Amino acid sequence: MKVDADAVLAGDRIAVARAITLVESSRPDHRAAAVRLLSTLLPHTGQAYRVGVTGVPGAGKSTFVDALGGRLVATGHRVAVLAVDPSSSRSQGSILGDRTRMGQLAAHPAAFVRPSPSAGTLGGVARATREAMVVVEAAGYDAVLVETVGVGQSEAAVAAMVDSVLLLTVAGTGDELQGVKRGVLEHADVVAVTKADGPNEAPARRAARELRGALRLSGRDAVPVLACSAHEGTGVEEVWAALRRDHDGRAGNGELAERRRRQRLDWVWSLVRARVLDELHAHPSVPDVERRVAAGTLLPSRAADLIVDAFLGR
Amino acid sequence: MKVDADAVLAGDRIAVARAITLVESSRPDHRAAAVRLLSTLLPHTGQAYRVGVTGVPGAGKSTFVDALGGRLVATGHRVAVLAVDPSSSRSQGSILGDRTRMGQLAAHPAAFVRPSPSAGTLGGVARATREAMVVVEAAGYDAVLVETVGVGQSEAAVAAMVDSVLLLTVAGTGDELQGVKRGVLEHADVVAVTKADGPNEAPARRAARELRGALRLSGRDAVPVLACSAHEGTGVEEVWAALRRDHDGRAGNGELAERRRRQRLDWVWSLVRARVLDELHAHPSVPDVERRVAAGTLLPSRAADLIVDAFLGR
Repeated sequence: MKVDADAVLAGDRIAVARAITLVESSRPDHRAAAVRLLSTLLPHTGQAYRVGVTGVPGAGKSTFVDALGGRLVATGHRVAVLAVDPSSSRSQGSILGDRTRMGQLAAHPAAFVRPSPSAGTLGGVARATREAMVVVEAAGYDAVLVETVGVGQSEAAVAAMVDSVLLLTVAGTGDELQGVKRGVLEHADVVAVTKADGPNEAPARRAARELRGALRLSGRDAVPVLACSAHEGTGVEEVWAALRRDHDGRAGNGELAERRRRQRLDWVWSLVRARVLDELHAHPSVPDVERRVAAGTLLPSRAADLIVDAFLGR
Repeated sequence: MKVDADAVLAGDRIAVARAITLVESSRPDHRAAAVRLLSTLLPHTGQAYRVGVTGVPGAGKSTFVDALGGRLVATGHRVAVLAVDPSSSRSQGSILGDRTRMGQLAAHPAAFVRPSPSAGTLGGVARATREAMVVVEAAGYDAVLVETVGVGQSEAAVAAMVDSVLLLTVAGTGDELQGVKRGVLEHADVVAVTKADGPNEAPARRAARELRGALRLSGRDAVPVLACSAHEGTGVEEVWAALRRDHDGRAGNGELAERRRRQRLDWVWSLVRARVLDELHAHPSVPDVERRVAAGTLLPSRAADLIVDAFLGR
């Protein structure tokens, strides 16, 4: 697979799409080509604002992203929408899998909407999405929205690759905080209660108040909580403004640069760990050592020495 | 430090104590001697019943272990009490740190009570305790009780090294399940509500009923829940009988052998991972690569390749 770096840098959509297909591949020759391409593109990145959009299924993530993206392209931004959905290989109704859910935005020439890679593990999907971010930023997209499925560890994976995390939630019936798990709220920089329209508006505003209370209790009163309706178009611009304020505050005091620096280093180490542990488990010394440990004739501590020494060629 | 394996095998208390001091050391020459010693002792292990004793601080673990251990030595058992307490280096009031809390048992010639090693990390403490188990089993102790602090990940660490886990809890005031966190209940093979004496007896029995209900709801009705008083000596033998039934059931159907086999393999891999990741982070190629990644001039994926290749000498 040949991808022209200059065409990507010129913003050519077909080149961008091909580049992302390349970085999603795990074939060794594709990986080598991907690393060469990405290394060429890397110096041309870093100018975009990277926003993670999280929330449970049913929180209206796709509808919101479609509405927000539409407003952004209308005001001169170039918007890329990516996704981290490790379940997409299994379930058909996965995020961004159905292009029609984001049809309006996907059709706009200044927008680039890409479904989640369908590689199996969260680690693999997250790696591909991180690399796709390099591609779209190099291609000049200045707003990169990364959506998650909102289940499992994918929020943490997205928080590790963006500048700000927007948590979307809906007003529940009875328990207003339903759908907001502790771990998820923890990553949020801005919270928005969606579907605040018609008979749902009052419950949505009440849910927003309760979320503010919950955030205050955990000492995070600086996190703005808004209500919006992507359907009616109300509040969407305010959510974007809150995100921009979050970004600008962090950019001003050096926190953004430090966050990105730390994210890059964490990215390196997660790749290193995954590769080394894969190779360790596949080492030819392993089966015999494991057999003797299982039989109880070899001390586990000694077995560990044998595997490590064999692996490191000592 | 020289330890005579034959003296350990003969059950010599001083040799056992010295052997445990040796396995607790992280000095490279001590580690080499420890692995030699443990490899000699290993074939003489496997006959003991290994019981983990968990529960929140205040659940009465030390008092219970003292009472249970006293009954076991009175009926001809040889009892070793070990501990996994990664906090013991910091806090003074840690488990087994105060010998007087288990004074009766510690004074008995058929008992061996050892405080938790005070190495810093949970991994280090767990490694030392696992190896101390090899020493005491080889020395002929047939009941090995491993106590935990009951906070953080130490329950999981203990569950990974014993045949059965006994969870101790107390009746709370109001919320009867207080002190029983989900993750802790998950590891329990037998549950006992302690301090069931005097005015506390009725609440303790009510708490036991509620715990049975909670376990039934999570599909674990086979887990026995008892009430006992280590102070009055009531119910302690019944708890031991429940543990023995758990052990015998598993020993009979091959589950115990499989559990120990899996524990040994997990132990190997946790040691291998810890050692390899330590060496990876200390590799001389790392600082320069990290500097370039932090500066944004080196692609993280490429950086990972550089570190892995340098580490594996390619």
